[in-house]
Amino acid sequence: MVRIAVLGCGRIGRMHADNIAAHPRARLAGVFDVHDPSATEVATRHDVRKFASADDVFSSAEVDAVLIATSTPTHVDFIEQGVRARKAIFCEKPIDLSLDRVNALRERIAGADVPIMLGFVRRFDEGHAAARQAMLDGEIGNLHQVVITSRDPGLAPEAYIEVSGGIFRDMTIHDLDLARFMLGEEVAAVSAQGSRLVNPELMERCDDYDTVVVTLMTDSGKQAIITNSREAAYGYDQRLELFGSKGMVISENHRQNLVTKHLASATGISAPLQFFFIERYMPAFMTEIGLFVDAIENHRPVPVGFEDGRIALMLANACFKSVAEGRVVKISEIG
Amino acid sequence: MVRIAVLGCGRIGRMHADNIAAHPRARLAGVFDVHDPSATEVATRHDVRKFASADDVFSSAEVDAVLIATSTPTHVDFIEQGVRARKAIFCEKPIDLSLDRVNALRERIAGADVPIMLGFVRRFDEGHAAARQAMLDGEIGNLHQVVITSRDPGLAPEAYIEVSGGIFRDMTIHDLDLARFMLGEEVAAVSAQGSRLVNPELMERCDDYDTVVVTLMTDSGKQAIITNSREAAYGYDQRLELFGSKGMVISENHRQNLVTKHLASATGISAPLQFFFIERYMPAFMTEIGLFVDAIENHRPVPVGFEDGRIALMLANACFKSVAEGRVVKISEIG
Amino acid sequence: MVRIAVLGCGRIGRMHADNIAAHPRARLAGVFDVHDPSATEVATRHDVRKFASADDVFSSAEVDAVLIATSTPTHVDFIEQGVRARKAIFCEKPIDLSLDRVNALRERIAGADVPIMLGFVRRFDEGHAAARQAMLDGEIGNLHQVVITSRDPGLAPEAYIEVSGGIFRDMTIHDLDLARFMLGEEVAAVSAQGSRLVNPELMERCDDYDTVVVTLMTDSGKQAIITNSREAAYGYDQRLELFGSKGMVISENHRQNLVTKHLASATGISAPLQFFFIERYMPAFMTEIGLFVDAIENHRPVPVGFEDGRIALMLANACFKSVAEGRVVKISEIG
Amino acid sequence: MVRIAVLGCGRIGRMHADNIAAHPRARLAGVFDVHDPSATEVATRHDVRKFASADDVFSSAEVDAVLIATSTPTHVDFIEQGVRARKAIFCEKPIDLSLDRVNALRERIAGADVPIMLGFVRRFDEGHAAARQAMLDGEIGNLHQVVITSRDPGLAPEAYIEVSGGIFRDMTIHDLDLARFMLGEEVAAVSAQGSRLVNPELMERCDDYDTVVVTLMTDSGKQAIITNSREAAYGYDQRLELFGSKGMVISENHRQNLVTKHLASATGISAPLQFFFIERYMPAFMTEIGLFVDAIENHRPVPVGFEDGRIALMLANACFKSVAEGRVVKISEIG
Repeated sequence: MVRIAVLGCGRIGRMHADNIAAHPRARLAGVFDVHDPSATEVATRHDVRKFASADDVFSSAEVDAVLIATSTPTHVDFIEQGVRARKAIFCEKPIDLSLDRVNALRERIAGADVPIMLGFVRRFDEGHAAARQAMLDGEIGNLHQVVITSRDPGLAPEAYIEVSGGIFRDMTIHDLDLARFMLGEEVAAVSAQGSRLVNPELMERCDDYDTVVVTLMTDSGKQAIITNSREAAYGYDQRLELFGSKGMVISENHRQNLVTKHLASATGISAPLQFFFIERYMPAFMTEIGLFVDAIENHRPVPVGFEDGRIALMLANACFKSVAEGRVVKISEIG
Repeated sequence: MVRIAVLGCGRIGRMHADNIAAHPRARLAGVFDVHDPSATEVATRHDVRKFASADDVFSSAEVDAVLIATSTPTHVDFIEQGVRARKAIFCEKPIDLSLDRVNALRERIAGADVPIMLGFVRRFDEGHAAARQAMLDGEIGNLHQVVITSRDPGLAPEAYIEVSGGIFRDMTIHDLDLARFMLGEEVAAVSAQGSRLVNPELMERCDDYDTVVVTLMTDSGKQAIITNSREAAYGYDQRLELFGSKGMVISENHRQNLVTKHLASATGISAPLQFFFIERYMPAFMTEIGLFVDAIENHRPVPVGFEDGRIALMLANACFKSVAEGRVVKISEIG
Repeated sequence: MVRIAVLGCGRIGRMHADNIAAHPRARLAGVFDVHDPSATEVATRHDVRKFASADDVFSSAEVDAVLIATSTPTHVDFIEQGVRARKAIFCEKPIDLSLDRVNALRERIAGADVPIMLGFVRRFDEGHAAARQAMLDGEIGNLHQVVITSRDPGLAPEAYIEVSGGIFRDMTIHDLDLARFMLGEEVAAVSAQGSRLVNPELMERCDDYDTVVVTLMTDSGKQAIITNSREAAYGYDQRLELFGSKGMVISENHRQNLVTKHLASATGISAPLQFFFIERYMPAFMTEIGLFVDAIENHRPVPVGFEDGRIALMLANACFKSVAEGRVVKISEIG
Repeated sequence: MVRIAVLGCGRIGRMHADNIAAHPRARLAGVFDVHDPSATEVATRHDVRKFASADDVFSSAEVDAVLIATSTPTHVDFIEQGVRARKAIFCEKPIDLSLDRVNALRERIAGADVPIMLGFVRRFDEGHAAARQAMLDGEIGNLHQVVITSRDPGLAPEAYIEVSGGIFRDMTIHDLDLARFMLGEEVAAVSAQGSRLVNPELMERCDDYDTVVVTLMTDSGKQAIITNSREAAYGYDQRLELFGSKGMVISENHRQNLVTKHLASATGISAPLQFFFIERYMPAFMTEIGLFVDAIENHRPVPVGFEDGRIALMLANACFKSVAEGRVVKISEIG
């Protein structure tokens, strides 16, 4: 039984707390949030301890692992605290918005034998994983192109966008990690285009984009194409296509149900997509926690580690650089 | 080159005339219709002879074959005339509404060596045929159930319904033939249920039904289920399912195009179905004429013959009897 | 908090126990099974009491409700015991294989104010329910035909078939209830056809069928068509189609994932169906328990009651009679 | 009646000849091919004149229009001859592989009042056109992204690849035109990536690519993403997605039939895609000829003109430049 405390009781922290509580080999060891009512609510619901501070969490002998679901700027410190306290760490993406800070942290925790898992949940989606498995089984031959369509159901609030670190570090980063995972080899070069079509005024002000295309290339010539929008009127669009020398496999969108309507005006009318990441990736979030628990219990490497988080951030930075300079950016330029 | 004249220049006759004209090994030898303007229109369009009478057609030395697309009550006489004149015959279904008349005709033309083909066009639909081929190839093992969904896009005009011979002889007869074709063995017993839901007043008056279910059984226990409605608001619904010991194959509906729309209200919104039999079975009508030409040119049996038309009528009669008597009717009772 | 004990710790009892344990407003009050190791396993897993006998369950003051998942012959006695002990009852279908016994029980418990819910889980399937809701919302106009395709992934063991009460009482009964639920008015007449195609020898011996078609008619002419097979090689086939004057709505099959493969041999290759009822209807089983808890907590009628179980059995008996006598059977003849 | 002669009786010329012959308001005025047997075959099939030379075609008083389906290097001269002879011209893409030659031709024919239509057939695909119409009707709001997936069923022969002008000028050029057509405003900048994955040795030798991604940007920020491969094992992949502020519309792939198979190993198994452009775009080729005839008969502008062919070539050149220089190329740099 792995005892996991949750730092941060916002929407995603609450969900992780629920998943931990439901896991047969994990126990929710308590929660903390600087916003006390949020912590109280989750602690009460699961009848677990509400810690008085993050320090209390890290120093508690009742805690084997800490799940960090707090705001991004706190991640680096909490990871370091966790490493020092020898608690296994599960951290939501991104590690930080600054690659320099991430690199500095990396040096400080080098050699520490503490599992650090990053929350790139899409790797664990049943469909995406089945598509990858078909590829690994040779069903599509050699991989040539990865095509990821990833659009959010609606623009996040302005306050969120302003501190998000920009679309590439906040939203595309999930797709960048997924692309790496599917490509099976490191990305060598990045080309990105950005537009301001959903909310031009806000994007102008934040020097950000809401509609982007990213092309990743490996040294062997494999390509990954990521298409993002901050706002798809028809909902959370999450598709993955793997194209290879012998065929193609597609992980399709998830609808709210499997009912079709056939009327005078149209046929095959289907339900809206599952609302957003909590709904769409719910089973993947459960799988993710299970793999974290497995890694701790069986002293196995975590399936997505600190370095994956760092490389995804490098790719995101390369995207911004590519847009700014109107050229292909090599990863070796990012540092 | 087979020279084919067309009797009857209504909607279906015109279509057959176009198909004959377009066929590389057939020639439209002329047309006739009691409604002269219809004949004129088709004759002019294809620049072919307009015959003065049906007799002229059958006695013409320029005519190898006659396609009968006139009203049902004329079919028996025209078939007999064709046989006497040694013209190959293609006759639209049904042969006649009266099984007695059909049986009498059968005796009169017994032994005549003239090809008579019945227009059960659905046998030649590319999808239905591919489904059957998969079955014949053993892909679904032994056939257990044939499920046919067949619904018209809208109730025919009252004047048509009144002389149609009833839904089983007019509409279901196509599905009865298709079921026989798929079952691959003769139907032994029929059970049918009829309802009056689309236009109860009209159906009451005509002693007819607009919504029916038919179950066919062979001696070996194979089942065919036919679901009909005279009016599907979403269009011409034509589905065929073959279920066997190793799997299932489905011939799906045809839409007007392959575009899908994804909006806030719904996803996967697809085009309406192809409008009606002329649109839906257009390629099958072409195939059908081609097979008729083949049979004549190469002295091969026609793929659907007089006996198929007679048995389909027997099945239709069995349906009426089954509804009337509330019981399973054996084909051996019909005669 | 409703305290529910589970009688019977076989596959379905275990699943209900898990669902009760996971429900926020229910508590698993203990379990009993004549096969002690089964009871031990479930009791241990959930850390709950293992009762020494069914009597102990019914007499326990710690038990508000009893879920009956034991073998069919025990249901009648357990329901009666539950009523006498004033425990709310949730009983898996069927109530009993004998309509006489069910009718006798009905008299004995008449007037008792104890909730009795029957486990017709398909009513609570998200897709089936959404299809019905679309109908209730008027999207398909007046209902004309209900088409249910329901095929098991494989023939049950011989020992099971022999005591199952026959396909209509064991398997079709779910579809009969679902059809009634969708029709929204009582069935007046039944026509059924049965074949022996999956395992003719076994079916002959048990005087049973493995491949059946059932047509239900209401007095107003609404039709329901049920197509069953004991063995679909491609898996658990569960489709529902509602056809009405303004359109059609279909609740489609559920696949194991939403991945499609596109290869040289074929395109759109999709995953197998979800294995069997436990997998396919898992969310519906959760919903079902939740509604049972709701009914108890809020003193509301159960959504599926004793009378629903009794009528479904009458319909199943009518199916057998219809096959045996080769005719339409009126429900008024049954009973 | 427009009298159209066909220059070039290869695969695509033959198809155009058939379509012209089948068009009610066009007449096939004759054919010419330097490979005489090809011309003989088509002339015989349609019973039309076989011209002795291209000059004879252009000087014939029996010819209103000339369809140029000869090899690319001949296009410029034939167009010029056609203009001088005042024959309406339909020319297969590309005008030429050299933008300089195209620009020179443009100057020479400036001011000539002769219809010149380019064979960008995809604009006339029923699905693509219906998707565009939905966009024009406002169904998806403002267009943000055009996503084109376009993969050939197999690598063309080496001899073809060597003189093709490279993937962007030979294959992508169709998608570039389609993207322009859908974007509804001019492309301002191009970014392209190319890989050698299908036949690296050949591509290296030809300094060409077989797997490419192109991103087009308009000044207003609209994006088009084109994904190409010279070889898709599963067939001719032709998809178009229009994503806008209110929704998305997709023109899906065409299969050889609409049959699905459901077996123990997989479900929804569908037919292969329609083989290649002749099969896939057959109705569009018919539409295209019809629009050419319309333009001539009614003195209306052709729907795709010389300038469309020139701009598509500029975009293709920009793709090559972008790959070579690893940067975004502005269209203003080309030409």
